[in-house]
Amino acid sequence: MKNSIGTSVILTLAGESHGPMICAVLDGLAPGIPVDETYIASRLSLRRSQGPTDTARREQDAFSIVSGVFNGHTTGAPITILIPNEDVRSADYERGLARPSHADYTAHVKYGGFEDWRGGGHFSGRITAGIVAAGAIALSALGRKGITIGTHILECAGVRDEGFSETDSAGQIEKLQDMSFPVLSDVREAMEARILEAKAAQDSVGGILETAVCGLPAGVGEPWFGSVEGVLANAIMSIGGIKGVEFGSGFALAGMCGSEANDAFCVKEGKVLTRTNHNGGVNGGISNGMPLIFRAVVKPTPSIGKPQPSVDLDSCTEAELQIRGRHDPAIVRRASIVVSSLTAIVLCDLLAQRFGTDYLK
Amino acid sequence: MKNSIGTSVILTLAGESHGPMICAVLDGLAPGIPVDETYIASRLSLRRSQGPTDTARREQDAFSIVSGVFNGHTTGAPITILIPNEDVRSADYERGLARPSHADYTAHVKYGGFEDWRGGGHFSGRITAGIVAAGAIALSALGRKGITIGTHILECAGVRDEGFSETDSAGQIEKLQDMSFPVLSDVREAMEARILEAKAAQDSVGGILETAVCGLPAGVGEPWFGSVEGVLANAIMSIGGIKGVEFGSGFALAGMCGSEANDAFCVKEGKVLTRTNHNGGVNGGISNGMPLIFRAVVKPTPSIGKPQPSVDLDSCTEAELQIRGRHDPAIVRRASIVVSSLTAIVLCDLLAQRFGTDYLK
Amino acid sequence: MKNSIGTSVILTLAGESHGPMICAVLDGLAPGIPVDETYIASRLSLRRSQGPTDTARREQDAFSIVSGVFNGHTTGAPITILIPNEDVRSADYERGLARPSHADYTAHVKYGGFEDWRGGGHFSGRITAGIVAAGAIALSALGRKGITIGTHILECAGVRDEGFSETDSAGQIEKLQDMSFPVLSDVREAMEARILEAKAAQDSVGGILETAVCGLPAGVGEPWFGSVEGVLANAIMSIGGIKGVEFGSGFALAGMCGSEANDAFCVKEGKVLTRTNHNGGVNGGISNGMPLIFRAVVKPTPSIGKPQPSVDLDSCTEAELQIRGRHDPAIVRRASIVVSSLTAIVLCDLLAQRFGTDYLK
Amino acid sequence: MKNSIGTSVILTLAGESHGPMICAVLDGLAPGIPVDETYIASRLSLRRSQGPTDTARREQDAFSIVSGVFNGHTTGAPITILIPNEDVRSADYERGLARPSHADYTAHVKYGGFEDWRGGGHFSGRITAGIVAAGAIALSALGRKGITIGTHILECAGVRDEGFSETDSAGQIEKLQDMSFPVLSDVREAMEARILEAKAAQDSVGGILETAVCGLPAGVGEPWFGSVEGVLANAIMSIGGIKGVEFGSGFALAGMCGSEANDAFCVKEGKVLTRTNHNGGVNGGISNGMPLIFRAVVKPTPSIGKPQPSVDLDSCTEAELQIRGRHDPAIVRRASIVVSSLTAIVLCDLLAQRFGTDYLK
Repeated sequence: MKNSIGTSVILTLAGESHGPMICAVLDGLAPGIPVDETYIASRLSLRRSQGPTDTARREQDAFSIVSGVFNGHTTGAPITILIPNEDVRSADYERGLARPSHADYTAHVKYGGFEDWRGGGHFSGRITAGIVAAGAIALSALGRKGITIGTHILECAGVRDEGFSETDSAGQIEKLQDMSFPVLSDVREAMEARILEAKAAQDSVGGILETAVCGLPAGVGEPWFGSVEGVLANAIMSIGGIKGVEFGSGFALAGMCGSEANDAFCVKEGKVLTRTNHNGGVNGGISNGMPLIFRAVVKPTPSIGKPQPSVDLDSCTEAELQIRGRHDPAIVRRASIVVSSLTAIVLCDLLAQRFGTDYLK
Repeated sequence: MKNSIGTSVILTLAGESHGPMICAVLDGLAPGIPVDETYIASRLSLRRSQGPTDTARREQDAFSIVSGVFNGHTTGAPITILIPNEDVRSADYERGLARPSHADYTAHVKYGGFEDWRGGGHFSGRITAGIVAAGAIALSALGRKGITIGTHILECAGVRDEGFSETDSAGQIEKLQDMSFPVLSDVREAMEARILEAKAAQDSVGGILETAVCGLPAGVGEPWFGSVEGVLANAIMSIGGIKGVEFGSGFALAGMCGSEANDAFCVKEGKVLTRTNHNGGVNGGISNGMPLIFRAVVKPTPSIGKPQPSVDLDSCTEAELQIRGRHDPAIVRRASIVVSSLTAIVLCDLLAQRFGTDYLK
Repeated sequence: MKNSIGTSVILTLAGESHGPMICAVLDGLAPGIPVDETYIASRLSLRRSQGPTDTARREQDAFSIVSGVFNGHTTGAPITILIPNEDVRSADYERGLARPSHADYTAHVKYGGFEDWRGGGHFSGRITAGIVAAGAIALSALGRKGITIGTHILECAGVRDEGFSETDSAGQIEKLQDMSFPVLSDVREAMEARILEAKAAQDSVGGILETAVCGLPAGVGEPWFGSVEGVLANAIMSIGGIKGVEFGSGFALAGMCGSEANDAFCVKEGKVLTRTNHNGGVNGGISNGMPLIFRAVVKPTPSIGKPQPSVDLDSCTEAELQIRGRHDPAIVRRASIVVSSLTAIVLCDLLAQRFGTDYLK
Repeated sequence: MKNSIGTSVILTLAGESHGPMICAVLDGLAPGIPVDETYIASRLSLRRSQGPTDTARREQDAFSIVSGVFNGHTTGAPITILIPNEDVRSADYERGLARPSHADYTAHVKYGGFEDWRGGGHFSGRITAGIVAAGAIALSALGRKGITIGTHILECAGVRDEGFSETDSAGQIEKLQDMSFPVLSDVREAMEARILEAKAAQDSVGGILETAVCGLPAGVGEPWFGSVEGVLANAIMSIGGIKGVEFGSGFALAGMCGSEANDAFCVKEGKVLTRTNHNGGVNGGISNGMPLIFRAVVKPTPSIGKPQPSVDLDSCTEAELQIRGRHDPAIVRRASIVVSSLTAIVLCDLLAQRFGTDYLK
């Protein structure tokens, strides 16, 4: 697998930052799912750059669905979504100097100089527009089954949001649905201030995203290499800038003892639950019916205005780079809907594997 | 994919904790790789329980290779390794009460009561013996190409080892090769003391493993869903008890600004390097030639002697569980070679995809 | 796998007969392959309907490549090709009556009535335009390595062409390159006459296509389920209307004895060859360096003008159907380039698996 | 995919003709399927050599199931079956001279001399014992759902059996279940006589196998590259010696016109059927509820006693080969259960993809 993910429901991504368009093909989704273009547009708008804390590149994401949808519903055939690139300024990019912590150098080694280097080419975050558009269909398919997903900015530039609550994550997910700056407590202003400070200093910041999924039935996921955690980790790590993923209490488990970390069982109204959720809704790689909780770390945007030591890819000599172009001083806000979207696609896949291709119909 | 991982080099795992044997099939490895059974045995011995800090179950891992090896070399056909289970005491396990934070409940939901529940069945850590045996062949194949892998216990029960050095990770990896308790500084006694304390309290502890890979060529990995990070994360997360994976500076990147986190380029002896390695050797999902560095968190062993609130799977009622059986108060030590082994198999796969099936010949 | 094929080089198809466009994504091809749009257009023209023996639907196939190509060369990123549908007359099709031997009924069962039924929807031969466009790039990549592919109409409506010669298949392949009605001997007029007879009778005819590949190195293909024969058979059988595939002497082998059928070895200029080629260039699923030869049977086009007993999909009652719409009295001519194209894509995949992603660079 | 096939239900094969054992891993089958070792043994006995028309190598196939079965039922975890090789005489084989129409030469090129060449190594028909053992479990899983499979020898050495009837293929399948020489009419003696003639002449013969599947629900299979025909063709072509596969009327369709070849619909007791079955139960790659019918051609066994022109693999010079060893003058009889078994495994996979992993439970 390269640009495709999934076994029964499969997403394929194509396109470049400065090419004519981004293309996402979502194959294997059940027939009969209503496709609401307004909802897709609303998800894309959450990802779109919009104010001083985002890049000045302003794409309209005027997507079109050119296959797999008929009379307003999925047909079961592959869904192709095209999203044109309109606000492209390739002149801002200069071939030759590798931007540190970007894929310029590794793409150059891998593709031998034939890569489309403009704006990061195929490695650009721009491609995630395809994830969001396809993910919107997956999100609404899951929603019809009572499975909801929300992602918030748990941390940005040292400012920390509160985490998902153990008692009302479903309500919190609902609250997050249309928030353009998704946080659970009153931290937006503080975060934005820090982002603008970094921007003023020609610098950038990173953060941590936290995702919750409610309503996922128990028994989903496969043993060993098809685990919910492994498959989701692969998906989420594939998003540019994400360098770590943890489930449940994650790295904090290293400091707990078993009697603290174990999630004791209880039975409520005939349903097996756990009293705590340190395992984030997954045991042995398989969902246990509790909320699925994970966090992903987003590194500071590597594109910064400050001069940086670089290397000339053609001559293989050292050189100083000053990045022009338009870029985001932080991508956590825009990445949050990408994480939710990709999670939705992966869960559609796991559900279809488990219950068949008609499950989400 | 369920119990198999890989595209060009594929590992398949089968077996149960209390079944007759564990079976690992490693397919796609290049022909002509010398297979040294003594080396395989030595890797298995690193995983084997051995002292008071491990379970009292003592398996001899008297493996046999029954296909794919001829005249002491790999043939290119699938390699089958069988590892008998000998020290099994199923009477210690009692069907019906789900052990908290184990896969008992989720397996029951998924398999409807037909699962082999003895000792965790197919979800048991015992199956990782197959990873280590197959991984030993992968490790030696990589070694012939100058690619070395080492994993140490970075943290256990609150005791912290030093991390991999930016200047001599290759030397550190070498030092770790045959350490039964792999640490880089003088922390073994302190860690063991804490583990024994937990054991005395009928409790358990967790930890963090850190892995370094040296010698991996730049340009390996695929865009998006075939990234080095994503593919490795899927593999490593599949190991029972691992709940998080981070690359390079990982979650700490959330608190850095771009100018700190970016890895500036330099050129040394005609080779492009980076001055720091916050990205852990991967940019855009593709190796950049610097050491590959990642960490994985291991939760405290869920099997503890203390009584725990559980649920009876047949009657779906609450019940108290007191686990008998033999178990590890900490699995970090034993898990370290599992992580190195699985990393080796994944890298063999990525290299074969990139350079063809004969690359490791 | 549904609408995708391949392991290292992967083709994904999307689109419907009466949707806005066909979409083909070709992922994993080496970077640096020149992409000649004129050549792609010429391959599409071989598939295009063009005279009285073809359907009256006249598509211009004004394709555009929207990703994966930069400065006239492949970049290594996925190549997306879009081919608009322009000459669509959905009014010719009437929902409800299943056309015999088409996918109308099976699609209805599988997709529960949500399928795009117009003109066969996603099951239409129109989708093969995507195979031809993507295959043109694969064909030219192989051509640079001296690997050539040709397909001719071995049989149509009872008229038989001569087969590939054992001594000059390479020359015959070359001759076939730009033939719009590809035959090796003087049978075009006879075949066309029979097709027109069938058309006049509101009927249709089928045929047999024969394909040869020259220059394929020995040692390509994988054991058992990755065999050259199996992988190609899956690909070729996926083309609508193809109901059988045979390699080398194929079904005729049933009547031979071993001493006739065995291909004796000889050595010429230091190269191992076989004196005959009853195995069609493949032994044990792996190429042996001789020309790869296979045949595929194409059933008579199921769309015929004659009234036929059908079933009403909504009421599940019998009904008579008279197909209007425009259709081909025979598709063998148009299918020939589809077979060559898909063969090229599959061989690019097998070569990349064997020799790495840069082999065709 | 190399030695594995399937998406949801996956078969992996390992082992060599003269190694210690054959290993088959069948992963993804539903839990709760009764596993009857007597039935498995009976399927293996159908494949076993047994009289003068078969090889003198007499394996007992004393298989053992070492994972994935518990209390007599499948658990849902991978099932590992081991079949020891006992009657091995490696001294009969002499390294160096490639046997014509075997995989000796291609394996040598692919694996560079490291292949296990004894008795064909991993390419030997011996490995199909693993298919039969695993397939027996699949056959019984399907049987519980009313899906039955039978294969007979339609043609051998010029003697032709009658084909499956359009009116009672289910009854014919039942009759074939335990026939060691599966034919539908009174042709056994004539076929055996011809095989013995060939044997006496130190020669061999081939034939055609015909398979029918009854009870398969409509709507199974995936569009394009997941078609019933394509996926089955890949599987069946992977069996050594099979060089062609055709569905329904197959190659005979080339000589029909559409009005003959089309399968007119009718409705019987509320069920949609077709009056003829020229499409062999598949339209557009998806099952239509009619019997699935296909034929496979088996080439004459390449191992013959007559001297043959060969090549010395080490010196790359011509040499005459006289094969000793024990071999089958015809493998059609033994291959018939292999085809049924592999068909069963592929159908379990397609059904699990369509209806979920519990469908066969």
